[in-house]
Amino acid sequence: MSRKQRAEIDAMLRRPRPEGHQSVEEIRAGFRAMMAEMIVPLGIRTSSTTLGDRPALLVEPVDGPRAGTILYFHGGSYVVGSPETALSLTGNLVVRTGYRAFSLDYRLAPEHPFPAAIEDALSAYRALLDSGEDPSMIVFAGDSAGGGLTVTTCLAARDAGLPMPAALVAFSPGLDATRTGESMDAKAGIDPFFTRESLEQTAAMYLVGQDPHQPLLSPAVLADLAGFPPMLLQAGTNEVLLDDSTRTAARARAAGVDVVLDITAEVPHVFQAFAGVLDEADEALDRAALFLSQHLRVRDTADTPGRPRKR
Amino acid sequence: MSRKQRAEIDAMLRRPRPEGHQSVEEIRAGFRAMMAEMIVPLGIRTSSTTLGDRPALLVEPVDGPRAGTILYFHGGSYVVGSPETALSLTGNLVVRTGYRAFSLDYRLAPEHPFPAAIEDALSAYRALLDSGEDPSMIVFAGDSAGGGLTVTTCLAARDAGLPMPAALVAFSPGLDATRTGESMDAKAGIDPFFTRESLEQTAAMYLVGQDPHQPLLSPAVLADLAGFPPMLLQAGTNEVLLDDSTRTAARARAAGVDVVLDITAEVPHVFQAFAGVLDEADEALDRAALFLSQHLRVRDTADTPGRPRKR
Repeated sequence: MSRKQRAEIDAMLRRPRPEGHQSVEEIRAGFRAMMAEMIVPLGIRTSSTTLGDRPALLVEPVDGPRAGTILYFHGGSYVVGSPETALSLTGNLVVRTGYRAFSLDYRLAPEHPFPAAIEDALSAYRALLDSGEDPSMIVFAGDSAGGGLTVTTCLAARDAGLPMPAALVAFSPGLDATRTGESMDAKAGIDPFFTRESLEQTAAMYLVGQDPHQPLLSPAVLADLAGFPPMLLQAGTNEVLLDDSTRTAARARAAGVDVVLDITAEVPHVFQAFAGVLDEADEALDRAALFLSQHLRVRDTADTPGRPRKR
Repeated sequence: MSRKQRAEIDAMLRRPRPEGHQSVEEIRAGFRAMMAEMIVPLGIRTSSTTLGDRPALLVEPVDGPRAGTILYFHGGSYVVGSPETALSLTGNLVVRTGYRAFSLDYRLAPEHPFPAAIEDALSAYRALLDSGEDPSMIVFAGDSAGGGLTVTTCLAARDAGLPMPAALVAFSPGLDATRTGESMDAKAGIDPFFTRESLEQTAAMYLVGQDPHQPLLSPAVLADLAGFPPMLLQAGTNEVLLDDSTRTAARARAAGVDVVLDITAEVPHVFQAFAGVLDEADEALDRAALFLSQHLRVRDTADTPGRPRKR
């Protein structure tokens, strides 16, 4: 059954798309329309707020949040997307964990190229800390370009002398602007969503000629991850970006960082957005929620929930 | 706090051991004594049984098992160990999942070298199938050499024309008798438990001159994992066997298999045995239990527990 679900989603993503040149606004509208098809779970309420210098969407469980904050970064190649386009993903983490999430509306390229997005993400994190939130009760999560931001914002925070958050979760993160992963070619055509050309089109808007050989643009090949918090990287095997995750996981292991590399076969980029339709999406989100809960829960308690009693 | 726990366990494992030549029975007694220190969780009951051609320990939750069977393979380099020495690990999976486990007392080297252990494991799996158990309700789990058996028993089952189990979970599996992983040298001295020499001593008893370049002895470098069920591989970074897991995960990804490579930093071989003492051990077991539950639960249900309702 689930193999059938995987095949259906692959076919759906291969539907013909508009040909010829599209304006940035047309690309953004197309992405909004696609993501509007994703199922937003019941049990959340949203409100507009600001975080640091930017608007943000506060996503809370209806039943009242428990202590802990997810700082969420939406996907969209740094060019498209918003907290609304990622609401299925953010909402699914919120209902599964009980934590509130701030989903950041960071500045986009081409109007605001690199490093504007990272600056906004760091500013949002700093605002949370300044509000009195303990870093051990904050986690970063994000998808695609936003998954990249979970890592690069940690780099920027470390460089700024800020403490690390408690954990990070990244869904199909983009972590290599040099595009040197083997999967870039090995998964060409297998990936129903991205091509090298489509990635280069948006990357050109984000980089505007800046050198991709920088840790903040290509952490999978250049970043020192020492001191990073526990990381969960989820990706599908039908992705040209697969090796962005596998190489980052290898760097994390080498740096002495707890890292779970969680790969689902025959699913596309950010397959977790198909929660409610694809069993693997819900299961991956359940694993992400457990991971977040494990690292946000206060340590040193004598009797942690879920722990068997001892003889 | 947990970094302190990790350091304490490392120091404990570095306690001086008996020097000079030990008989096989002395090595077995030393392993029994060490594993007897591990905490067995409350909430299980055990009984002796047989499975296939071998004795087995049936481990059940006191509150009554739910449908689903774990076939557990203990560790001990194919030379030492028993269902009793792995009871902490098996019991922790049972209380966390609610499934019953059969922990197999497979034959050991040097009395019974390769492939005796695999023959016994396959015979036990066949006995479960012959008893009417649906393969989709059976998972394999094991630690160290027993983690290796989770993989090699799947290979043997496939070769025998048997269906695959629903999933497999391996704690610090030994998956490469050629010992060619980079971690064999990179983690020498960092690993408080194994050295290349200690591994060669027991491997000599298991191989008795047989060529290690066989898929059933070195699946991390030689096995075709196509058609394998979802796999969860957990290991620590303080292990010479770390790359047995990383390379097997890479092979699984290449073969289109769902695979979670779950690495905890600065913990030793089969750190999950320190459940109740080391936070990371309990957390890893919780992740393993969720993974098993996800793959044993019947698909196609309209309303799976833990799944948010849909708009």
